[in-house]
Amino acid sequence: MDPQQQFLKKSEEAKDLFIPHLSTDPVVFGFDQSELKVLLLQMTYRKQWLLPGGYVKKDEDLDAAAERVLRERAGISDVYLEEFAVFGKKNRSEFYFEDFDESLWHKQRFISIGYYALYNPDNANLIIDEFSEKCEWIYLSQLSEIELAMDHREIIEKALLTLRERISYKPIGYNLLPEKFTLSELQKLYETILGKELNRGNFYRKIKNLGILRKLDEQRRGGAHKSPDLYSFDEENYKKALENGLNNW
Amino acid sequence: MDPQQQFLKKSEEAKDLFIPHLSTDPVVFGFDQSELKVLLLQMTYRKQWLLPGGYVKKDEDLDAAAERVLRERAGISDVYLEEFAVFGKKNRSEFYFEDFDESLWHKQRFISIGYYALYNPDNANLIIDEFSEKCEWIYLSQLSEIELAMDHREIIEKALLTLRERISYKPIGYNLLPEKFTLSELQKLYETILGKELNRGNFYRKIKNLGILRKLDEQRRGGAHKSPDLYSFDEENYKKALENGLNNW
Repeated sequence: MDPQQQFLKKSEEAKDLFIPHLSTDPVVFGFDQSELKVLLLQMTYRKQWLLPGGYVKKDEDLDAAAERVLRERAGISDVYLEEFAVFGKKNRSEFYFEDFDESLWHKQRFISIGYYALYNPDNANLIIDEFSEKCEWIYLSQLSEIELAMDHREIIEKALLTLRERISYKPIGYNLLPEKFTLSELQKLYETILGKELNRGNFYRKIKNLGILRKLDEQRRGGAHKSPDLYSFDEENYKKALENGLNNW
Repeated sequence: MDPQQQFLKKSEEAKDLFIPHLSTDPVVFGFDQSELKVLLLQMTYRKQWLLPGGYVKKDEDLDAAAERVLRERAGISDVYLEEFAVFGKKNRSEFYFEDFDESLWHKQRFISIGYYALYNPDNANLIIDEFSEKCEWIYLSQLSEIELAMDHREIIEKALLTLRERISYKPIGYNLLPEKFTLSELQKLYETILGKELNRGNFYRKIKNLGILRKLDEQRRGGAHKSPDLYSFDEENYKKALENGLNNW
């Protein structure tokens, strides 16, 4: 059976399980100490890259659908996904299934609920699903070189914007940095997300003022320069800041 | 025809126009110099209060649906609505139509896309639609005393949380304050949104540092105290800050 026929067979089997108008698209960003990557897949019968998304089941909470879809399509199950935006232009999916005839239920208009997460890619053991040929981390800097399906480029851009806004009012870094880290490593994380360099003095002052760091009685040894102090997150204050926001006013 | 019969008749007429699984709920906050209010309506055949929401048409962009629904149900058409969250629990609408039989298409599961806006209620000339008995501004402090339909209380709370987070990274106040205002009036707006008092010195310092204010060569006269300086927004910088965020880092 060729890939397109296989897709049609599976699609027919799944027809009654799903709400045809509703899909979720998880945007998982990976941070590898210097650059951001995003998790994408390529299906067997198409050249375009896709977010690892899928339809919502009729009897399934939306959040549960996003988790299931990411698990089924990429093998990732230990990530907290946060809903960030809805993609609902009426023609957004019109061309994606244009080589199928009208009997395909996917041809009905569907909107997509965008979820995002910032994730440590070292934790991921990616698993490719039966419809895909590849499931990979693609550097954001390389996105302009690949073809993306439907409005998935817009979804990724909006997720990145949301992530950048979020670090104005929520702490970030837990599970992305080693347990003990230097301020310079934390600054690098912020710079990577923001896509620009920050003034070191300002950053150190502001980040210390948040009250979410604990200075340890240890230094990072071995560099060419003066050994820098090590920090860890103050778990209680970090959690509180996550719940209540950083309260800039 | 009693209200419930009228609803059934209109519902049957509208059946083919809408996606039954998809509605939008606009949360419009009004600021009246001292407190926040929210726009709600009460339908003729029910005691519960509702957000002025409705279904999305099959051939309609999502954003356009939110605008249309607010216009049709409350008469408001000059407000910029921003999508903020999706409400997609599988049982969320289960009980709302329980006094109708299964043939009613509304009984199918639907998710709701939440939109919100902060609005000057002086601009509003509220118009009640044919299904409603009331369309009113209700103070947030009075919400605990009324009965709200489905998960609409949760939708309002999430909208308020989003608004509070938003003022960490976006300017606010344009179209809500008079053209010329005092810093104390601006502080009152922030305090009303945040639901708490702010330190005056800190607030003045931070708000001036944003670069979005122009100090005028005028004072507010007539009070018992020293006449305070008047300010207006620097339109260009305000717009820039709206687009790029306030850049706390």
